[in-house]
Amino acid sequence: MISNPIGFDAVEIDPAGRFVKIIDQTLLPGKEVFLELSEEDEIAEAIKSLRVRGAPAIGIAAAAGIAVVIMQSAALSSNELEIIFGRVYEKFSATRPTAVNLKWALDRMKRKFISLKAEYLCAPDRLRAELLKEAQLIKAEDIEMSVKIAQFGLSLINDGSRILTHCNAGHLATGRYGTALAPVYLAMERGMKLKIYSCETRPLFQGARLTSFELKRAGADITLICDNMAATLMQRGFIDAVFTGCDRIAANGDTANKIGTLSLAILARHYSIPFYILGPVSTIDSETRSGSEIIIEERGGKEITEPVNGVEIAPEGVKTYNPAFDVTPAELITAIVTDRGIFRYPYNFSF
Amino acid sequence: MISNPIGFDAVEIDPAGRFVKIIDQTLLPGKEVFLELSEEDEIAEAIKSLRVRGAPAIGIAAAAGIAVVIMQSAALSSNELEIIFGRVYEKFSATRPTAVNLKWALDRMKRKFISLKAEYLCAPDRLRAELLKEAQLIKAEDIEMSVKIAQFGLSLINDGSRILTHCNAGHLATGRYGTALAPVYLAMERGMKLKIYSCETRPLFQGARLTSFELKRAGADITLICDNMAATLMQRGFIDAVFTGCDRIAANGDTANKIGTLSLAILARHYSIPFYILGPVSTIDSETRSGSEIIIEERGGKEITEPVNGVEIAPEGVKTYNPAFDVTPAELITAIVTDRGIFRYPYNFSF
Repeated sequence: MISNPIGFDAVEIDPAGRFVKIIDQTLLPGKEVFLELSEEDEIAEAIKSLRVRGAPAIGIAAAAGIAVVIMQSAALSSNELEIIFGRVYEKFSATRPTAVNLKWALDRMKRKFISLKAEYLCAPDRLRAELLKEAQLIKAEDIEMSVKIAQFGLSLINDGSRILTHCNAGHLATGRYGTALAPVYLAMERGMKLKIYSCETRPLFQGARLTSFELKRAGADITLICDNMAATLMQRGFIDAVFTGCDRIAANGDTANKIGTLSLAILARHYSIPFYILGPVSTIDSETRSGSEIIIEERGGKEITEPVNGVEIAPEGVKTYNPAFDVTPAELITAIVTDRGIFRYPYNFSF
Repeated sequence: MISNPIGFDAVEIDPAGRFVKIIDQTLLPGKEVFLELSEEDEIAEAIKSLRVRGAPAIGIAAAAGIAVVIMQSAALSSNELEIIFGRVYEKFSATRPTAVNLKWALDRMKRKFISLKAEYLCAPDRLRAELLKEAQLIKAEDIEMSVKIAQFGLSLINDGSRILTHCNAGHLATGRYGTALAPVYLAMERGMKLKIYSCETRPLFQGARLTSFELKRAGADITLICDNMAATLMQRGFIDAVFTGCDRIAANGDTANKIGTLSLAILARHYSIPFYILGPVSTIDSETRSGSEIIIEERGGKEITEPVNGVEIAPEGVKTYNPAFDVTPAELITAIVTDRGIFRYPYNFSF
């Protein structure tokens, strides 16, 4: 996979370390606004406000952001840099407290800083350069992860396959290519003709706003549906497989993902359609034994009653229930496709 | 059932036949605007623009509309009235060509007119009064239908039942009370405490806009969810039964209803939750043998890509698939609750 399917990455790192460049995902698909961020506050704000989103992409943005701030600082010693590093680390950590990749990427940068500081005590410029290289490495490894998922996932696709996906687990959510959508990009590169259906993914419309944007931009055959139309597509024989991403996979294979995923898994089972979860092995949380231990974030009702900013569609004060994720039981998942191979039910992960 | 649960009916007929009064449902729930319509063009426009919607309510509005136009006309003979009647009949028939109730109600008024004209050849005022009475009778019979569905449906509900519903098959869609929601109103009147969950019902949000409006107004315990959250509710044990309306029932029990109904039926089966369809026997079409013969209307993509007027959420020109209805196979329907009794699978309708 050599090409960049949509012409830019969700997070680009200036080779000279002057800025992190992102496309403002809050404005997609209506406006394509690229932001070159170098100030720590604007980088923190971009992560907090979901201008960059998707767990892997957030991790890359935070690592790149801390490298850029360090690169641009006028500090003359590594001790001074350490003070700045600590401040930025805390600031970025606080932006999305539940995003595991953010913390993971920041901790990796911190470990690098500590080992570099011991090694290059008197060479702050070398320290700056090495931190920038580490951020680039995090992105490169993330892209490599996607390529491996793409390769394993490709074995589940045929020329002409019709795939249903949910939310956005694509190019915009990762370093490049995505998780659920990575095999789609690889298949396209190989000249296969796929037909992709994307659920709009209420309440926040990531399927409509992001998945249909990136797949259309990449030249894929993409059709957008409302979430409640998936059953009809399956009933009519329009769908060969369901591909979704994942937010956390328990040790037994139970998988938390964007709300609506469970519904697709049950419908797919009813119509004997394979249902695949795609994600890196880092999403498998061996300390969570089963889905019942996964805590599901419940969000405010405005996301339901106000589907677009400023327009209320429900009576004032109506009660809502808005879980952001659901848990699909392992037995409904045909296979989990990772960067280390394909696992099948019953799940016994070992790498 | 004596009360009017939300304080007004979707269609009110002025006792003196001067106007038909409707609440403009296109503005709900944001604004409550009542319209008193007496001109044939404004009545036709109100039906065409969905200011009044729901098959039974449309039928009542059309019958009442034709009576009001006749009442208000200055015609001095029944022959003159007949010309006006014919013109209005054609105009109203053309507003929603696929709504069966509209044609049914207009034809009933036409039959009445023809028999009256024969009987009261020289008494146009008597003819006017009798047509008004016929429109009032159509509404009264529709309310009686709802009451019967309510009584039969009540046997499926217990105090404390938690019911999931879809779209709007309630008070606003009928003469009064509704179909799927009629048992809910009767249960409330009997002092039972129910908990109702309403799917928002994409793409047009009838669940959010109308069902949550009327149930909240009636003092019900109503919680609004996005369509893709129903599976999680069932998984968590929050739902005791699913109640929906219907647009057409084939002779074998296969049922067409608002898109999203099929999904709920499959999910309910997966979680062993009873799934009920509620509607008058007039919805059973004995000439349609099975669901495969039901033609499903596919509508424009704007309803998906522009969830509220003027706000695009998807990239320009993205393909969409927008079936307005789906067909639930008879074997997934626990029972069909009509005004003539409860039928259970396998369906063999006889009255």
